[in-house]
Amino acid sequence: MRALWLANQQLTYRKDVSIPVPQPHEALVKVLLAGICATDIQLTKGYYPYTGVLGHEFVGQIMQAPDAPERIGERVVGEINIACGHCQLCTKGLSTHCENRSVLGIINKNGAFAEYLTLPLKNLIAVPDTVSNEVAIFTEPLAAALQIQQQLTIQATDRVLIIGAGRLGQLIAQTIVLTGCDLKVVARYPKQQQCLEMRGIHWILERNIAGHRFDIVIEATGSENGFLLAQQTVRPRGTIVLKSTFKNNVSLDLSRIIVSEVTVIGSRCGDFRPALRLLAAKLIDPSLLIDKQYPLEQGESAFEAVVRSGSLKILLIPNLV
Amino acid sequence: MRALWLANQQLTYRKDVSIPVPQPHEALVKVLLAGICATDIQLTKGYYPYTGVLGHEFVGQIMQAPDAPERIGERVVGEINIACGHCQLCTKGLSTHCENRSVLGIINKNGAFAEYLTLPLKNLIAVPDTVSNEVAIFTEPLAAALQIQQQLTIQATDRVLIIGAGRLGQLIAQTIVLTGCDLKVVARYPKQQQCLEMRGIHWILERNIAGHRFDIVIEATGSENGFLLAQQTVRPRGTIVLKSTFKNNVSLDLSRIIVSEVTVIGSRCGDFRPALRLLAAKLIDPSLLIDKQYPLEQGESAFEAVVRSGSLKILLIPNLV
Repeated sequence: MRALWLANQQLTYRKDVSIPVPQPHEALVKVLLAGICATDIQLTKGYYPYTGVLGHEFVGQIMQAPDAPERIGERVVGEINIACGHCQLCTKGLSTHCENRSVLGIINKNGAFAEYLTLPLKNLIAVPDTVSNEVAIFTEPLAAALQIQQQLTIQATDRVLIIGAGRLGQLIAQTIVLTGCDLKVVARYPKQQQCLEMRGIHWILERNIAGHRFDIVIEATGSENGFLLAQQTVRPRGTIVLKSTFKNNVSLDLSRIIVSEVTVIGSRCGDFRPALRLLAAKLIDPSLLIDKQYPLEQGESAFEAVVRSGSLKILLIPNLV
Repeated sequence: MRALWLANQQLTYRKDVSIPVPQPHEALVKVLLAGICATDIQLTKGYYPYTGVLGHEFVGQIMQAPDAPERIGERVVGEINIACGHCQLCTKGLSTHCENRSVLGIINKNGAFAEYLTLPLKNLIAVPDTVSNEVAIFTEPLAAALQIQQQLTIQATDRVLIIGAGRLGQLIAQTIVLTGCDLKVVARYPKQQQCLEMRGIHWILERNIAGHRFDIVIEATGSENGFLLAQQTVRPRGTIVLKSTFKNNVSLDLSRIIVSEVTVIGSRCGDFRPALRLLAAKLIDPSLLIDKQYPLEQGESAFEAVVRSGSLKILLIPNLV
């Protein structure tokens, strides 16, 4: 089959990758649509030494399911962590942190930038008929955005700042605004600002932020500057949520964290079901974030488009229509 | 009066410092006993550019109180933050973070390594008769230790690690063990280990800690190594509490914090009243932590004793008996 293959930080379009064979309890999924995420970009820069088919955001269709033939034909999205189910962390309900886990397109499991992938049946969640592929493709990053509110209560009276209005920042903003809190988003580019305005969300330029203090600051840029701005804008006893992947170590003034009694929370993947409920209820509209869709063989151009400043969502179409 | 004076990171014993005059709502306090804290050591190393009388841990006696003459003679300890009472933070109940605050012996207010000090009457809290000076002197660091449980619920089923068994680490251990949790303390020196054993607290050597994972890790060394060990020993979705003053910036692998969804909490001063209640109930026994008491004029030797490896508490007696 055709696939985008990562090896030694080099991404290659290949036509000779074997179609994966579903293991017991797995399904073979035809990939209908795939999304490129910041983590994919980081992987091409060596954030983690992965070799294999890249990609973890997808909408697909179940083609083979030896243990559940009744699910063949189902349109699905997929939880990306494949847990062992019996280690200390799995048995404590922390299966997304399983010590033996593989992760679709990230750790030891071929990913979604291909015509087909396999995943355990329990990872595959049916997409409601009313949710299009172009909306369902945002399930994984939307679930990651919602994970913030699994870890932290956001009250309607809180002042909240989101730093960064790219793909993930936009989805976070659309979830946080549902709380009724006093939300501002640092947005640099006109297209980012327009997307926020279309959802009635207030944006602000970084240079106009001096003197404001926020109860909760969500860092969604993955840059050291973003983290410094978070430290400057959070109030004493406030909370910083780290929501983006940092490639390099960051030099941190821990005394400042201590004296101001700030809480810093690392936040990663979330549950897909609430994300699908919000998409089906049309309370989140991610489709306005799509910049462009590319066929798989133009993967290189697609990756170049993602890293362009101010870009939003770039999608890949792995199968010929 | 006699005092230990800090200027340009140089500590000097002086006999010519003026006795402070209480402002409205303040009291003049005769210092009966004072304690040297890690923050005092950091101040002599330039952690904050303070000039004046050093010291913020004390037990004293009210000598003058123009607004409350009935309190003259009262034996007291004192909250060290002097808040303005009307800024945004004060009015939100965050007076220990007041933007205009002065802090006894730390920011813009002469401290406790002197025969006399002044503090607002509302900062001065009576010491129960059953609590000796040598026990009451630990009220401020004990309050700081208890602040951890104001910020974080420690459950009896939690596995908790304290890194560092110096003055503060010992007090934290004595408070945490009261929860019934599964507690271990990294203790390097025999004297530290003995103090823990006397309270029935389990200690562990750093080299024996590999492979253990803890729900909560409390960093009480203020060293980069301590923070690295905290990152290595906390479980996914666990919590690191930063309880010590760091002089230098620390290089931090934020990706690790994010991927493991760790929470980092900075923690500082606490309320004195619960600390005094636990001391009066003899549920905390800090007196075993006292290494030696020095008269004020031997302040230099006292500071040298504090920085000696494995030292515990060094006290100063500012007034001649």
